[in-house]
Amino acid sequence: MSQSLSSNRQLLLTSRPHGRPSVDNFYLANTPIPTPAQGEVLLRTVFLSIDPYMRGRMSDAESYAAPVALGETMVGGTVSRVVSSNLDGFSKGDWVVGFSGWQDYALSNGQGLVKLPASLVEPSHALGILGMPGFTAYMGLLDIGKPQAGETVVVAAATGPVGATVGQIAKIKGARAVGVAGGPEKCRFAVETLGFDACIDHKAPDFAEQLKAACADGIDVYFENVGGKVFDAVMPLLNTKARIPLCGMVSMYNSTGLPDGPDRLSLLMGTLLKKRISVKGFIVFDDYGPEMPGFMKEMGQWLSEGKIHYREQRVEDLEQAPKALCDVLEGNNFGKLVVRVGPDDLT
Amino acid sequence: MSQSLSSNRQLLLTSRPHGRPSVDNFYLANTPIPTPAQGEVLLRTVFLSIDPYMRGRMSDAESYAAPVALGETMVGGTVSRVVSSNLDGFSKGDWVVGFSGWQDYALSNGQGLVKLPASLVEPSHALGILGMPGFTAYMGLLDIGKPQAGETVVVAAATGPVGATVGQIAKIKGARAVGVAGGPEKCRFAVETLGFDACIDHKAPDFAEQLKAACADGIDVYFENVGGKVFDAVMPLLNTKARIPLCGMVSMYNSTGLPDGPDRLSLLMGTLLKKRISVKGFIVFDDYGPEMPGFMKEMGQWLSEGKIHYREQRVEDLEQAPKALCDVLEGNNFGKLVVRVGPDDLT
Repeated sequence: MSQSLSSNRQLLLTSRPHGRPSVDNFYLANTPIPTPAQGEVLLRTVFLSIDPYMRGRMSDAESYAAPVALGETMVGGTVSRVVSSNLDGFSKGDWVVGFSGWQDYALSNGQGLVKLPASLVEPSHALGILGMPGFTAYMGLLDIGKPQAGETVVVAAATGPVGATVGQIAKIKGARAVGVAGGPEKCRFAVETLGFDACIDHKAPDFAEQLKAACADGIDVYFENVGGKVFDAVMPLLNTKARIPLCGMVSMYNSTGLPDGPDRLSLLMGTLLKKRISVKGFIVFDDYGPEMPGFMKEMGQWLSEGKIHYREQRVEDLEQAPKALCDVLEGNNFGKLVVRVGPDDLT
Repeated sequence: MSQSLSSNRQLLLTSRPHGRPSVDNFYLANTPIPTPAQGEVLLRTVFLSIDPYMRGRMSDAESYAAPVALGETMVGGTVSRVVSSNLDGFSKGDWVVGFSGWQDYALSNGQGLVKLPASLVEPSHALGILGMPGFTAYMGLLDIGKPQAGETVVVAAATGPVGATVGQIAKIKGARAVGVAGGPEKCRFAVETLGFDACIDHKAPDFAEQLKAACADGIDVYFENVGGKVFDAVMPLLNTKARIPLCGMVSMYNSTGLPDGPDRLSLLMGTLLKKRISVKGFIVFDDYGPEMPGFMKEMGQWLSEGKIHYREQRVEDLEQAPKALCDVLEGNNFGKLVVRVGPDDLT
């Protein structure tokens, strides 16, 4: 870690993956620590968030955000401390959440930079339960999914930061929560610790049958974050007037082409028609930015009351970020993955 | 027509089609005219509506409504006159809209039966612009599509009762209306008479390129009523935050299996995700029943002001109904298809 005190380590995207990304898509550069101009702050990264959407930013296929250019620092959400400030409203030592990317140090003109409230006991939570993943779960489930008491809500990646939050909010709203996760340990955790009514192992050979059995009254809300075989098993179980908030398709991010036929596009549209289902894709900060303070307040309340359990997995050292992203895309993490980039302490 | 005065002609569904329906799926029966019990009215059909949804009722595949049982009278919306009444609120001679099905006479206990307002100059309009198709266009476009001034709205079957209404309401709301129809005559009618900004012939070999050229700013609302190759051409043109009201997929109704691959289900879901699109299937009477009076009032106003043009195609004689349905499913009609079953006059 001493190296980061005298120079800026940056993980540059140097090639685009075909299929699964690898650590070789990145290059570790050492550059001088930059100096903030007037109107800028210098930030030192403490925590870096690793999220599935990053796979999309590595590709130059059309997507909702521009790709990271080759040779540029990989993007990512961060919790940082202000090292020095030439910007009104920020002072040395402030904790902030922003988008410094995969590096030790970054300059910011304040755009997209938010000071962490003093009440936040764990700063890294601003990257998870009180940040983008928690906000995604909250808005997608409540604004699009609209679960009613007694309805059945299904979500995959049930121990990940989005899925775990979806299931727990569904329970708060009186719905049944059925999770999908990879392996018996995660499924046990979802039921015993997070309070899901059931959690099905998608690695089980009879996964679809187990899901059907766990959803005896069909599925009213399917919070879609993975796609693939989970959606295949969900589709025939959807009830009339079901709602599908669509925030991700992790299982497809590494795919290199369309699967073989038959072509089920018309089957999907026909299902949406016959069952009067609504599907809505969303990106939480773009679609719901102004709702963030309300979310922070309610989620903070639920956390303080012990109604929401949050699991974080920490990886030490910025240089482990590429491997951590590969792991997240394969579902090898257990809980919200955060990289510890630098110490809490500024000195 | 004299036969209908002494007995009741009924078109019974006697076999289920595999693929395209044929007139041989129906049998013309002659039965006694029924007698209304206490609490019933006897109705004589004047007009029978022919609509694409009827194909679904001929199949026993899972759908939003139960299939017509073999040997039963085919279902359909009708405008009728009351021949005799043992039901409070209905009197001999009243004009009503209901669901008598494909027959000359029917009994009703009043459920689903609505008296036509005296202001309705053309009773058959209760089956079209002021009935289910017009209501479908109105609610789907305004409640789900939500077209904004300057946006581009695309709809297929642009000279049919739903598509024509969608395009004209889009224009009233200040949006651009781009239609899709089969053949130059329908396309010319859509532009010159209905006021569409453009209408593309889906039979043209370069249909997709023409549609793209007509939608230079992309597509903000796609009102889906046909599916198939029209949707294929629309999908890449959809803008961020596009809305897709989904009320039908006529092009798929006669298909006997899924098309060959590749499997584009994940491509569709990925498009909805990346572009934050919403899709919502709906059935107008089930989802929007209470909105009917408001629709009737506003649409009546538009009609009286000449803001909405409505084209109806009449087919003479109940016995032509099977062929008329086959034509509608092939797009061989031009305007809303209505079968004249009996005379206006009761005597």
